[in-house]
Amino acid sequence: MVTRTVDLRSDTVTKPTEAMRAAMASADVDDDVLSGDPTAQRFEEEVARIMGKEAAVFVPSGTMGNLISVLVHCEVRGSEVILGDDSHIHIYENGGISSIGGVHPRTVKNNPDGTMDIDRIEAAIRHPDGALYYPTTRLICLENTHANCGGRCITAEYTDRVGKLARKHGLKLHIDGARIFNASAALGVPVHRLVQAADSVSVCLSKGLGAPVGSVIVGTKDFITKARRLRKTLGGGMRQIGVLCAAAYVALQDNVVKLEDDHRKAKIFADGLKEIKQLSVDASSVETNMVFFNINESSMISSISLCEALEKFGVLAMPASSTSVRVVIHYQISESDVHYALTSIKQAIQEILAVGTTK
Amino acid sequence: MVTRTVDLRSDTVTKPTEAMRAAMASADVDDDVLSGDPTAQRFEEEVARIMGKEAAVFVPSGTMGNLISVLVHCEVRGSEVILGDDSHIHIYENGGISSIGGVHPRTVKNNPDGTMDIDRIEAAIRHPDGALYYPTTRLICLENTHANCGGRCITAEYTDRVGKLARKHGLKLHIDGARIFNASAALGVPVHRLVQAADSVSVCLSKGLGAPVGSVIVGTKDFITKARRLRKTLGGGMRQIGVLCAAAYVALQDNVVKLEDDHRKAKIFADGLKEIKQLSVDASSVETNMVFFNINESSMISSISLCEALEKFGVLAMPASSTSVRVVIHYQISESDVHYALTSIKQAIQEILAVGTTK
Amino acid sequence: MVTRTVDLRSDTVTKPTEAMRAAMASADVDDDVLSGDPTAQRFEEEVARIMGKEAAVFVPSGTMGNLISVLVHCEVRGSEVILGDDSHIHIYENGGISSIGGVHPRTVKNNPDGTMDIDRIEAAIRHPDGALYYPTTRLICLENTHANCGGRCITAEYTDRVGKLARKHGLKLHIDGARIFNASAALGVPVHRLVQAADSVSVCLSKGLGAPVGSVIVGTKDFITKARRLRKTLGGGMRQIGVLCAAAYVALQDNVVKLEDDHRKAKIFADGLKEIKQLSVDASSVETNMVFFNINESSMISSISLCEALEKFGVLAMPASSTSVRVVIHYQISESDVHYALTSIKQAIQEILAVGTTK
Amino acid sequence: MVTRTVDLRSDTVTKPTEAMRAAMASADVDDDVLSGDPTAQRFEEEVARIMGKEAAVFVPSGTMGNLISVLVHCEVRGSEVILGDDSHIHIYENGGISSIGGVHPRTVKNNPDGTMDIDRIEAAIRHPDGALYYPTTRLICLENTHANCGGRCITAEYTDRVGKLARKHGLKLHIDGARIFNASAALGVPVHRLVQAADSVSVCLSKGLGAPVGSVIVGTKDFITKARRLRKTLGGGMRQIGVLCAAAYVALQDNVVKLEDDHRKAKIFADGLKEIKQLSVDASSVETNMVFFNINESSMISSISLCEALEKFGVLAMPASSTSVRVVIHYQISESDVHYALTSIKQAIQEILAVGTTK
Repeated sequence: MVTRTVDLRSDTVTKPTEAMRAAMASADVDDDVLSGDPTAQRFEEEVARIMGKEAAVFVPSGTMGNLISVLVHCEVRGSEVILGDDSHIHIYENGGISSIGGVHPRTVKNNPDGTMDIDRIEAAIRHPDGALYYPTTRLICLENTHANCGGRCITAEYTDRVGKLARKHGLKLHIDGARIFNASAALGVPVHRLVQAADSVSVCLSKGLGAPVGSVIVGTKDFITKARRLRKTLGGGMRQIGVLCAAAYVALQDNVVKLEDDHRKAKIFADGLKEIKQLSVDASSVETNMVFFNINESSMISSISLCEALEKFGVLAMPASSTSVRVVIHYQISESDVHYALTSIKQAIQEILAVGTTK
Repeated sequence: MVTRTVDLRSDTVTKPTEAMRAAMASADVDDDVLSGDPTAQRFEEEVARIMGKEAAVFVPSGTMGNLISVLVHCEVRGSEVILGDDSHIHIYENGGISSIGGVHPRTVKNNPDGTMDIDRIEAAIRHPDGALYYPTTRLICLENTHANCGGRCITAEYTDRVGKLARKHGLKLHIDGARIFNASAALGVPVHRLVQAADSVSVCLSKGLGAPVGSVIVGTKDFITKARRLRKTLGGGMRQIGVLCAAAYVALQDNVVKLEDDHRKAKIFADGLKEIKQLSVDASSVETNMVFFNINESSMISSISLCEALEKFGVLAMPASSTSVRVVIHYQISESDVHYALTSIKQAIQEILAVGTTK
Repeated sequence: MVTRTVDLRSDTVTKPTEAMRAAMASADVDDDVLSGDPTAQRFEEEVARIMGKEAAVFVPSGTMGNLISVLVHCEVRGSEVILGDDSHIHIYENGGISSIGGVHPRTVKNNPDGTMDIDRIEAAIRHPDGALYYPTTRLICLENTHANCGGRCITAEYTDRVGKLARKHGLKLHIDGARIFNASAALGVPVHRLVQAADSVSVCLSKGLGAPVGSVIVGTKDFITKARRLRKTLGGGMRQIGVLCAAAYVALQDNVVKLEDDHRKAKIFADGLKEIKQLSVDASSVETNMVFFNINESSMISSISLCEALEKFGVLAMPASSTSVRVVIHYQISESDVHYALTSIKQAIQEILAVGTTK
Repeated sequence: MVTRTVDLRSDTVTKPTEAMRAAMASADVDDDVLSGDPTAQRFEEEVARIMGKEAAVFVPSGTMGNLISVLVHCEVRGSEVILGDDSHIHIYENGGISSIGGVHPRTVKNNPDGTMDIDRIEAAIRHPDGALYYPTTRLICLENTHANCGGRCITAEYTDRVGKLARKHGLKLHIDGARIFNASAALGVPVHRLVQAADSVSVCLSKGLGAPVGSVIVGTKDFITKARRLRKTLGGGMRQIGVLCAAAYVALQDNVVKLEDDHRKAKIFADGLKEIKQLSVDASSVETNMVFFNINESSMISSISLCEALEKFGVLAMPASSTSVRVVIHYQISESDVHYALTSIKQAIQEILAVGTTK
């Protein structure tokens, strides 16, 4: 009988605050499809300003934000996009850029820090006047922070280099910035600087920032005009979205400043895990709000059995592989929750070992 | 200087009520992508029950509802869908079923009442073992009420006949039921009876029912499972959607009963238009909340100039063609608004004629 | 026991002549994908010259010719094409422009003479800056001769008018000219004049012209460059295609002049059919090498049973509907064959009526 | 002034023999789209028999053979295919499976011998009941011989293991067998044994076998039925294709036996290259008719400048990278040609070094 829940599965599980709910309840709204919702317009202008881009558009999800961005840049049939082999777009978005958009993905190996070698990117580029059997590269995608690489941050300098490469070859650069504010907080660099070299960025509002629903894409006015049309095609055009944008606005106002503290708590978590002999964690790689830890083979405990055992303590986490677990910290996880989770992990392991559960 | 606004462009312009806003502010929510949002689940179950289908899923828009439904029924490459040549899916949804889904549309002429001749539908059907150069028909789509046919209602009997034809040929039947509750109210037939023969229905919550955002698709459990996956692919998977579903639930509870009154007001509107000699309207075709009227050629007034002139009175309406105008009534339009709009139309026409504006 | 075969199913059934076979056997060839086949290049230049266009490319079939043409003109996602509701591209090509290319077809009613009303075409055009829920029209397609309209010819004057409309709206014009040489012969107008207003034309070599395999697309150099790349994508890039082009060259040299005689024989056929009281045919609509005739309802004979009965006489024809039959004349059908077929039809009808077969 | 041409760019450059040309000139043909071409039917039956599969269909190219195969196995929207990151389908076919078919490619690293680690393949598999954001793996592709891995052979044992894995997970296995007869000759294993575990194989006739045009796909009857329909959609349905199949039949009869000798000549070539100090080649990796050699960095000669210099000797070869060259042997390259090419390479290098050309 659990009396406490510590949900560490993702930073998408945050629940809207009272301030967000109040904002939703009082938002000035209108039909955004027909002639524009005033709250949405103000919100989009604010996000564009923060990101240092001309324009912005609200979308229902980060997946749609990335899908629209890739499809607008690759609007001509026969386009290829270069992206990391461990990127969210490639692995966790249903292959939509291909199945929905007919865009061919060309993957380049992600380094452990989330970057791709510039040389490898350049070697993968194919030009429209190339061999008759080559698709045309039109886009490079980066991800910042890079989820599958442990939430590691991509620096402005690296991004600039990729942007320079893209321009040299007439390509566009898109950043999947679902957690770009985490990168900004961790690196101490303004978010507009981090995405300066990018032609488009998708930013998630319902992860660490805590809005109930939504992402935003930013780019040039022309890009956003095309994005709005494609949003309508995909069915992402919604009516009185001021209710969602009002909450997202509060998320932006109130919660960006809390990300740094999330990172501090993640480090505490990682440090705590190091004390557990059945586990290993590379604490130096914990740069933002994610912690990946491995269960030592000798313990004979699978990630699934550990997560199941943890559930009895009210601690929710997700297996990242058969022997590793992903934990994500957000502002609704307190330092006390972190300690409770660590204690629960220790106890869960003891219980499993006592029963002799083997993977 | 306008002191009053009567927005007759669409029933999508309704603004959320206090009850809806309160529901949003207090909704019990969770991550709908990760493990389900409790308010969304209750709402989906309720809609499924009302519609008489096994399951339901909330989607951001009616366009996505139709797109997902067509794509799930036509999941195999080389599918063809039979639909009305004046249907919303064919004309007003960006051709998404083709551009996004690769589904080939085969149109059949819409009769003025929104139906298609059963013979013509049957003649258009093509089987998987047919000629090598034929796509395979997998779906028939109806629209109820039929927007481009003046909001006319499709009867249960007609729908049953199309459903029987579909089953005879191994096809599925989808109903674009954006305004199916209007049809139910006008025909005096329960909505589940109206869609009994359908394999799937998309129902809009943000039109006459007044929810800020959203539509729902209903169908078998298997259909809805596939719809959820495709919703994720398209980027329609949202997090704490309980906030939207709570408002939609109120819309369903409070506003279905008001549709009949909307229809009464539409008839008043149509009757009033008959009195204006420059206009003509077939009042007998006004079955629900839509009124289409023509501007007589002899008046030399274009629909655009009339709508522009009306705007000065705060009356908003949309040209349906160069000589016809569409007006949509909803529960936030009072009988007094109707009379104000009629008076404004008369005055606007007089002003145009005085100035001698010609089309 | 049949001693004679008269195959009237299509003009695609012609067999290569000795001259074609000799040309194939002696053709100078090279790898057309790698660096160009010399015979193909000469052939493509010659077709471009005849058609009055900058460049040409050989493709395996008329279906691929149309598919490539539509896809090159509609290379941007979200394109719509306007085409006849009875056109070959819409009805007989597997819906490939949608299923393969994601292009949305918008049909306009074909008149009995194969044209579409210019007003209706213009009304269907949708511009890129139009409503957010409109796809963008990028192409109009004509078909000349128009197969489903009985092989009727489209005049240069009509084509010019459509071309003018296309240019006015920034659209392209493609002609499915599978049988454009038939139209040229029947109208007495050079083929380059007939297609003067078109941006691209696909021409079939394996119909009335009798080549074993292939079609050609013509257009600007830039169009053909893109067409070659798309041909490769679709798998239509072939190696030593000089063998096919050599035969097609002979077809062009030897058989264009024979088309006029095919039309004369088709008229004889139609005149002969008029004498058969169970049949009706509008001889005035027989403009080229196709004859469609109806079986009078009172005879109670179905087209399928008639075609089956004819097969016993070695006369092959195809039902066009349950009560109509299509007959196609080509240069390997002699005048004697025509008379034999007419006699066979009479006898077949007598036999069916004797047995009392009913449809 | 070149007096001799030795074209080593590819085995696609072979020109049809007298026997092939004679076969084309006398082939019994009919309309393959309408009711089947007799020579094509005999040829397809023979290929199916040789490959040990139920049925076969002739296609214009290997690219179309692979495209159709992948698309038939992945006929349901949202499919993912696992294939080598250096495979022909992924790199050299315009990304058609995505741009034309909407299939999402998931690459696994190709080992130098053309295989992929079985563990890595299995780790990449994703099931239809998996996470909502995962596409569904439906196919694994192998390539035998593997062109980008130097024409190395994949053994029957390895293929069996992949086939077993595919069946375990309910997946299909396709083999891009463009040069499967080379693998058969090199391994001394009948070709039907090599592809025993595969659900489909595409085999090229216009590479080492020397036919002017064409490939064949083999598989179950049901698979081939679907392949024929898709061939029509793509525009690969051709009319009197007996002329091409007759030549391909001769290729099969006469040239399969010559492949072993091609491999012997390739080894002579590789051995000769070892003697040239500016070059390096791993002769042990030369298993079939391909030789890749590297130009040592210290020589400062680029592959492009070497290939250009060779052209003056009438020796044609293709750069594989900036410092490596690909050479392909076929039956129209004699042992004398091999020695001439080796001598030319030596001389070309001397000339470049004399002039001091640097890369």
